[in-house]
Amino acid sequence: MGLFPDSISDLIEQFARFPGIGRKTAQRLAFYIMHSDNEFAAQLAKSIVDAKTKIIFCTICGSITEDDPCSICKDTNRNDKIVCVVEESVDIYMFEKTGLYNGVYHVLGGRLSPLDGIGPEDLNFSQLVNRITDGMEVILATNPSIEGDTTALYISKLLMDKNITISRLARGIPVGSALEYIDEATIARALEGRTAL
Amino acid sequence: MGLFPDSISDLIEQFARFPGIGRKTAQRLAFYIMHSDNEFAAQLAKSIVDAKTKIIFCTICGSITEDDPCSICKDTNRNDKIVCVVEESVDIYMFEKTGLYNGVYHVLGGRLSPLDGIGPEDLNFSQLVNRITDGMEVILATNPSIEGDTTALYISKLLMDKNITISRLARGIPVGSALEYIDEATIARALEGRTAL
Repeated sequence: MGLFPDSISDLIEQFARFPGIGRKTAQRLAFYIMHSDNEFAAQLAKSIVDAKTKIIFCTICGSITEDDPCSICKDTNRNDKIVCVVEESVDIYMFEKTGLYNGVYHVLGGRLSPLDGIGPEDLNFSQLVNRITDGMEVILATNPSIEGDTTALYISKLLMDKNITISRLARGIPVGSALEYIDEATIARALEGRTAL
Repeated sequence: MGLFPDSISDLIEQFARFPGIGRKTAQRLAFYIMHSDNEFAAQLAKSIVDAKTKIIFCTICGSITEDDPCSICKDTNRNDKIVCVVEESVDIYMFEKTGLYNGVYHVLGGRLSPLDGIGPEDLNFSQLVNRITDGMEVILATNPSIEGDTTALYISKLLMDKNITISRLARGIPVGSALEYIDEATIARALEGRTAL
């Protein structure tokens, strides 16, 4: 474009580096900053640096935290014999919001995806294998995608020799949706996994 | 949520203040920063502060710039007898990209919107009235919305006593679109404004 003042062009470039943020959105964000008060820009800049400086990864579960171990791993009220394996730290909060899960987590840091060049050595597998001992329960909560399924399968093979219970999250029709909007693959899974009334 | 580490919660709050950025997107942005290298976070923070510090408003047209007057206002090759009135600085770049406009601009800094509490005193009108002298041409390029139309009408009344040409951008069917996806109001405008072949 060349026409934006340099400092704006530069800011737009930075925002456009976020995945899912296109050039138009990046432009909108940059212009919003221009039109907001100085305090907002200063605070946003500070928060970015702060978060990046303070956040570390829990050496037990791999989740992001400010203290190691993270609040969940060090909570003695939680059942550390049940481990829910997720792709990213953010997935943990989806389970926590339900208020129904009292086990602990293990964050892989992604999913196997040969096309994106992500192989077993890029994920937090060895730590998982070390953590899991006989008698434990492992819930594979990777995403319901081909990569997520592959990753779950891979983990189940890694843990094959251990005397544990392994499960995968149920597939089916999301609560509150209407059948007519659901894809065939999901309907098929819902039929397959139908439960007795 | 309470469950995110404080510095992440704080960063999510900051991102969620942008218009059009929901909580989920704010979360995704914050987590992307967590997983990117330190250089990116530092650079982004710096760009935000830089842009906010360096950008001022052109005292002639009201557009954002690093130097006053802005590059367009001080370009002697441009026809300063034709003034295109836009809502925001960012709109200027849409015209500049066409390469077809050689006049100058006037940035209002928004549009009249009583529901949002934006009245005539909040916009750059008086400066516009001062700039416009007999014989000039004014193109009202506020957005094709109710507020944009109201603002255009308001300006045309402000400039009523001057001996000038005032126009509004043509309404019609966007280039490259298909009739079946166009709303009735646009079709009606396109019919109304049909041009002879």
